[in-house]
Amino acid sequence: MIHNFTTDQQVNHRSIRQFKDQSLSAEQLTTIYQAARHTSTSMFLQQFSILHLTEPKKQAAVRKIAEQPYVGAEGDLFIFIADLYRNQQIRHQLGNDDGRLHTTDIFMQAVEDTILALQSALTAAESMGLGGVVLGSVKNDPDKLIQVLGLPKMTFPILGLQVGIPDQEPQLKPRLPLNQITFDNDYPRDFSINDLKDYDQLVTTYYDLRDANKRIDSFTNQINGPKLNNHKTSRDMLLQALHNQGLALE
Amino acid sequence: MIHNFTTDQQVNHRSIRQFKDQSLSAEQLTTIYQAARHTSTSMFLQQFSILHLTEPKKQAAVRKIAEQPYVGAEGDLFIFIADLYRNQQIRHQLGNDDGRLHTTDIFMQAVEDTILALQSALTAAESMGLGGVVLGSVKNDPDKLIQVLGLPKMTFPILGLQVGIPDQEPQLKPRLPLNQITFDNDYPRDFSINDLKDYDQLVTTYYDLRDANKRIDSFTNQINGPKLNNHKTSRDMLLQALHNQGLALE
Repeated sequence: MIHNFTTDQQVNHRSIRQFKDQSLSAEQLTTIYQAARHTSTSMFLQQFSILHLTEPKKQAAVRKIAEQPYVGAEGDLFIFIADLYRNQQIRHQLGNDDGRLHTTDIFMQAVEDTILALQSALTAAESMGLGGVVLGSVKNDPDKLIQVLGLPKMTFPILGLQVGIPDQEPQLKPRLPLNQITFDNDYPRDFSINDLKDYDQLVTTYYDLRDANKRIDSFTNQINGPKLNNHKTSRDMLLQALHNQGLALE
Repeated sequence: MIHNFTTDQQVNHRSIRQFKDQSLSAEQLTTIYQAARHTSTSMFLQQFSILHLTEPKKQAAVRKIAEQPYVGAEGDLFIFIADLYRNQQIRHQLGNDDGRLHTTDIFMQAVEDTILALQSALTAAESMGLGGVVLGSVKNDPDKLIQVLGLPKMTFPILGLQVGIPDQEPQLKPRLPLNQITFDNDYPRDFSINDLKDYDQLVTTYYDLRDANKRIDSFTNQINGPKLNNHKTSRDMLLQALHNQGLALE
């Protein structure tokens, strides 16, 4: 591969979940925001916003939903929001109707804007020597999160991002080999679990050797286990929560 | 803001839509793939794949769907796919059921993986002096795209990405000011279109001064116009197409 400051950082990405007790400087914050702001946006609709949570009460409320002790603790917590409210307001204040804002199509474009911007924000943070972790866990209870954040209809929290000065050095987690995730022209339907034997061994070794939370586990074992097994969870309220917000109705 | 190789590149991002007639080298391709591969992934489910289209017939078929002449022309075309098929196969081949794979929750986690990986891929490309454009247009006709790509159920094409050696130098497109998209603790419900007067002027000047496709237009004018006005489009088949693929059923 071709090595430069950016790509070297990218292929060495680790999620950081333990931070020093120091918030971002104003300059670091602005840099992260500017990187997010200049990310590609679908049809120039610019349908995302970033909520920066600095109030301990709100941080604690989100941490309770996420059920992860590092959420809203040391470092800085951001919630990336798919935002169709701003464009709805523009249309209303110009005397127009909601148009296509309630369609699944336009909602998914907002989701795309939001997630692209989040990755840019994390890349910017990492380029400054900071670390971070993407928080899907903030959607454990979507209705509750929307209530905690006081979000209006036509907005939806997609992901959280915790960023700060790293206070841990986790090992690089092995990912699926390139030949399992990149294909030329034809998507292969003949997937065989046997092709993942070497990878499973790599993952098993990773869990066995890492400094914290050692265990015996493999990739296929995780996919075959509780994460994806049927169970009741408040995460299943996602679609209803979207609809409650007026989103993806059609 | 804090300037380094990565952040300087990020805040100077332009979508490139015109490329020299040269494909990526094997090393550039690998670098882009490795950057995507090491991106954050939700619950370690690794639910994305990248399809690289090099066959002229397939490129042309996608170009026809996207209705943009640069799609699948000079440079390299990638389709980023939310991939729940691989994990379904793992579970099946281990004698298990589909578990939660048909839920909206798990589908959205795949969407997140896919879009985060795409932004990493584009950032890697740009760091090597390449340019690129994210292609939402490939979803203009989701059913047709799935047919063209020969995708199995439990996969869904989310976005395209065209990458290559830039053959144009577009101006930097002005984005919404930071105070309109980043907020501390409270999401402001008192949005006023008057706050966008200066920004609208910036956008109008951008369209007036740019080298190609000059026109008179502003941001609020676009939001109030055809892009979001009610109209029939095959893009409204998105939800049905998702369901046809076995995704987001619950």
